[in-house]
Amino acid sequence: MTWLDLPADHPFGITNLPYGVFSTAGSSPRVGVRIGDLVLDLAAAAEQAGMESYAVWAQGSLNPFLALGRPAWTSAREWLVEQLTNPAQRDAVEPHLVPLADVTMHLPVEVADYVDFYASEHHATNVGRLFRPDSEPLTPNWKHLPIGYHGRSGTVVVSGTDIVRPSGQRKAPTESEPSFGPSVRLDIEAELGFVVGGSSELGSPVSVADSDEHLFGVVLLNDWSARDLQAWEYVPLGPFLGKSFATSISPWVVTTDALRAARVPLPWQTDPAPLPYLAGEATDDGAGTAYGLDITYEVDWNGTVVSRPPYASMYWSPAQMLAHMTVNGATVRPGDLFGSGTISGPEKDQRGSFLELSWGGKEPVALDDGSERTFLEDGDTVVLRATAPGPDGTVIGLGECTGTIRPARTQTP
Amino acid sequence: MTWLDLPADHPFGITNLPYGVFSTAGSSPRVGVRIGDLVLDLAAAAEQAGMESYAVWAQGSLNPFLALGRPAWTSAREWLVEQLTNPAQRDAVEPHLVPLADVTMHLPVEVADYVDFYASEHHATNVGRLFRPDSEPLTPNWKHLPIGYHGRSGTVVVSGTDIVRPSGQRKAPTESEPSFGPSVRLDIEAELGFVVGGSSELGSPVSVADSDEHLFGVVLLNDWSARDLQAWEYVPLGPFLGKSFATSISPWVVTTDALRAARVPLPWQTDPAPLPYLAGEATDDGAGTAYGLDITYEVDWNGTVVSRPPYASMYWSPAQMLAHMTVNGATVRPGDLFGSGTISGPEKDQRGSFLELSWGGKEPVALDDGSERTFLEDGDTVVLRATAPGPDGTVIGLGECTGTIRPARTQTP
Repeated sequence: MTWLDLPADHPFGITNLPYGVFSTAGSSPRVGVRIGDLVLDLAAAAEQAGMESYAVWAQGSLNPFLALGRPAWTSAREWLVEQLTNPAQRDAVEPHLVPLADVTMHLPVEVADYVDFYASEHHATNVGRLFRPDSEPLTPNWKHLPIGYHGRSGTVVVSGTDIVRPSGQRKAPTESEPSFGPSVRLDIEAELGFVVGGSSELGSPVSVADSDEHLFGVVLLNDWSARDLQAWEYVPLGPFLGKSFATSISPWVVTTDALRAARVPLPWQTDPAPLPYLAGEATDDGAGTAYGLDITYEVDWNGTVVSRPPYASMYWSPAQMLAHMTVNGATVRPGDLFGSGTISGPEKDQRGSFLELSWGGKEPVALDDGSERTFLEDGDTVVLRATAPGPDGTVIGLGECTGTIRPARTQTP
Repeated sequence: MTWLDLPADHPFGITNLPYGVFSTAGSSPRVGVRIGDLVLDLAAAAEQAGMESYAVWAQGSLNPFLALGRPAWTSAREWLVEQLTNPAQRDAVEPHLVPLADVTMHLPVEVADYVDFYASEHHATNVGRLFRPDSEPLTPNWKHLPIGYHGRSGTVVVSGTDIVRPSGQRKAPTESEPSFGPSVRLDIEAELGFVVGGSSELGSPVSVADSDEHLFGVVLLNDWSARDLQAWEYVPLGPFLGKSFATSISPWVVTTDALRAARVPLPWQTDPAPLPYLAGEATDDGAGTAYGLDITYEVDWNGTVVSRPPYASMYWSPAQMLAHMTVNGATVRPGDLFGSGTISGPEKDQRGSFLELSWGGKEPVALDDGSERTFLEDGDTVVLRATAPGPDGTVIGLGECTGTIRPARTQTP
């Protein structure tokens, strides 16, 4: 129990303790931990406590802390819990708590490599039906490996950053030539992002069993997508400009330690069974290391919750995505980020993209203000929110990831 | 004319002056410029000359220098030429010249985002015939936009780094289930890589006309490719593990300034004509900013030159690739790297991958030692080399990019 005056069901209680990068007026960005509606200035608190490692928290990104690896993350969490639960620490810690209202949040991670997966069977099936109506919706490889591709790390932005409508080439099947202009099918993809720490040696895979050594935490991720640009460009080498203009992530990185109570099994991985390098091993709590996450998610479009995609329905697990990504010997680095791919459940109101919710633009979505939408209009705001079960009946908040669409800057140049 | 004793046709003469990162025994990596078979220790020479900017050259990558942008690159080149041609500078400069034999070369750039294009019509046509024999070899978008995708920046390595054979999933069309194991179709892709400097604002494209502000220089690039992994994974989201295990680049970044005499027009861009944002504008020298590069390239397999791909045959120009990559508002950052895609000319002995040279493994390539090859065997060494015409009949060397294949570390785990 923390000595702070917090309701037991606060989504940022003592069982959560997510990391972010914040600044206050006139100060440089540095690492903080959220507790309730306060931010603990970690470098300041740790310096006062005489911890040698405080310097990693005085930086403007989590990367130096991520580089320290799992043992440092575990001891930091133990130290934090002690600071915030032992009343004897109160006088030392309280001066370093800053009201959330007084801080600006920054991108928490300097993103090294960004990979986006495609781990929802429902999403992949829906997109297959919409993009390739004359083929089987799932490609033959889909249940054998977590399909993924590299995205643009330089355009990952923090929640709250405005999204300029991208321009580019598109050609509808009914048109004879491509044309250039602002995207008219601008969409979201509601995802989780996994923040990677530690590092590995070139040529040596990270196994499913070792994935906990590298899976530091989770953010909400909006993989903004220009469907018209994507449809014209993506054969044969995959999505490029339809995705690379911006990817938003939430400011608070919720640790995998805080999400242990949210682990759920993946009972559907039987036909086909995954190859041994993806299979994982059973652990004491029975969940296996190839676990899913019971995260409740909502997509808010201009104030209307239009979808509640259940993360527990994802086919592939984070550990499997990491093991697959490195099985060819590719290294991981502190600050690597990988997205789950759009989270879509089996029901219509569980779809994580507007492409799916509006079924390719043919079935408009009704908002509470009486308007209808298929894709994003200028001025629209999307907010992603999520929570997970914590230990002892607590709630783990993942916070919000928001963005507002601004008009395209370029017309046909 | 330099005061160094150099033959006029030396590929690293005064008209070249490429940048790299080197170290000597017991010293930290720092920036150097190659002249003949010597390396000029730039930070030391600049500090002695009282240049304030020397600190950017004392770092272990070119990124701080790249961040300074075009005006700094131009004045640095003018200063370098003065140092190496004015005999009055000889006594000050000579102590900072290190024999190439005494240095270790390092990765010249901390790669920010890595993109790989697909800009050779001959390569794309060959691969289309091999991978999709029942379709038109070029996809409908190919002549309208430079197709590209993001690769893994964390596994870009410097020439000379051993390449561990990757393992992964593959499934031949004749097999009913995928299997796991070391790649049996390990290949090269002979490319040029373009090193980007300066930065841009999110939402604002870099035009073809402005591309010179960001195109710093060129390296040789080997996009090692596991064709069996790639064929099974790449539909629908593009290449991933078939490419991400390693990409080698040459240690010396030859500046675009040194390659001005190598600019050639792209007369084939007429049917279809590129959209205006890709068209570029005519310049005084008549080459247009959407220029190609007359670079002569060779691929050496275990001592036998098996191919001479002509870079001048590439369909899309570097400026067009950069403009396309950012037309959706994606930013560029210092250290971004993009590859041209495999360079293949129209003739069989101009193909830049072994997939094409062996026509999918069906036509073995004869080496001078009497052996035959289709794909790479453990112990094989590949060396890429290139030169370009310089001003006044000089030759601009791009150096070498080499790698040797080591056995896979993982069997079926």
